[in-house]
Amino acid sequence: MNKKRPSLPLIIGRKPLLEALLTGAAIEKVFVQKNTTGDEINQIKRLSKERDIPMSMVPVEKLNSLTKAQHQGVVAWTSVIQYIELQEAISFVIEKGNTPLFMMLDGVTDVRNVGAIARSALCCGAQVLILPTSSTASITEEAIKTSAGALRQILLCRVPSTSQAIDTLRLNGIQVFATQMQGSIPVFEAPLTLPTCIVMGAEDKGIGNEVKKMADGFIRIPMAGSFDSLNVSVAAGMVLYEALRQRSFNS
Amino acid sequence: MNKKRPSLPLIIGRKPLLEALLTGAAIEKVFVQKNTTGDEINQIKRLSKERDIPMSMVPVEKLNSLTKAQHQGVVAWTSVIQYIELQEAISFVIEKGNTPLFMMLDGVTDVRNVGAIARSALCCGAQVLILPTSSTASITEEAIKTSAGALRQILLCRVPSTSQAIDTLRLNGIQVFATQMQGSIPVFEAPLTLPTCIVMGAEDKGIGNEVKKMADGFIRIPMAGSFDSLNVSVAAGMVLYEALRQRSFNS
Repeated sequence: MNKKRPSLPLIIGRKPLLEALLTGAAIEKVFVQKNTTGDEINQIKRLSKERDIPMSMVPVEKLNSLTKAQHQGVVAWTSVIQYIELQEAISFVIEKGNTPLFMMLDGVTDVRNVGAIARSALCCGAQVLILPTSSTASITEEAIKTSAGALRQILLCRVPSTSQAIDTLRLNGIQVFATQMQGSIPVFEAPLTLPTCIVMGAEDKGIGNEVKKMADGFIRIPMAGSFDSLNVSVAAGMVLYEALRQRSFNS
Repeated sequence: MNKKRPSLPLIIGRKPLLEALLTGAAIEKVFVQKNTTGDEINQIKRLSKERDIPMSMVPVEKLNSLTKAQHQGVVAWTSVIQYIELQEAISFVIEKGNTPLFMMLDGVTDVRNVGAIARSALCCGAQVLILPTSSTASITEEAIKTSAGALRQILLCRVPSTSQAIDTLRLNGIQVFATQMQGSIPVFEAPLTLPTCIVMGAEDKGIGNEVKKMADGFIRIPMAGSFDSLNVSVAAGMVLYEALRQRSFNS
């Protein structure tokens, strides 16, 4: 068994996948064979894009490794969780009378980190976890297990790009703070009682260029010494805790 | 290769182990064959105890699985790191003019959690990590890797029991706060600018009875909703961050 393959149920073949896409079934990722053409393939591509489902163009060997069945050039992983549209999530939170506290992951690829962050987010009162389709780990059973079930409780939004998500957040009056080692604002000075989305970057490279260009501010966790290497899920936990702390004194 | 076996160099046989113990070599754990007797064995047991080195009485099969060499009933793992005596560590920190911020792990058995906690501790200015020999994971190469090297930089104390450690801490004017889900003090109200040792409990069962009886106070991380299941290394990170935050405003 390939250790890296998430153990998710598959949808195999053009008609079954097309039907799943049209009926709004929860789909984690679509694999399409390179250089395959046809009406159904085009529809699959278009619908996947419309629904912000990550899509990979892969060689036939990849599909053959996923299934021994006749796949006709397309295989998809079904989702073990449901996603919701970002604008819908924002409206839901605001209509409930809550002050948005969202977390966006920009390139976090370790499923255990995604799970641990979801867990901390839920504990600290964050309502929404935003996952850019292009850069973030798929939600596997392992991620859900690491999250102690939090991934089934927090609202999950899949977005095509961080920049589009930031636009939507801003239009709704939600400030976007990116976390950086060299950020200019110590996290305890950031006004986290306001509607806020916190962005955490990749384990190795940190936040991406789009977020660097568009964020409203850059927060850092002050470090006591020269050793400044926090695990991304621990760093996320600290920032979320700080938001919770500020909000505890403000409510 | 047995996946659960830490990849640590071995000391094999009575004379080599006795010599290592007498010369003060860094030893992680001693394995003695059950029902073995003799002068050297007694000396090995006594010296291991004196030096707070964890010791396991095991069947011969365990020793045979560790080495194919003639082990004469004793095998030890050498340490990849150096331990220091708790009173020595306290004196060192105080003499340097620092306010003690220590972390004690009471039953944390996942080496990755130990590593992640060491990393957060060092980042947040904690000087000492206390590991009770009876209940805490051995420091393996995996723990060091997860700690990003922090386990080689923070002062590490091995103590025979949590109660003895708490006695020593108290005698030196260091308060002991144990972290509990149902702790009475919200962590942001705990006076963490004073000399403090924070105790984190086991992943599943929390802190042990000795700590429950002896701690000066019980702190909790306030939770925003009904979901209250934080990963132990994330929880440790939040408490350490809070100490760092309080100390940033006080210095």
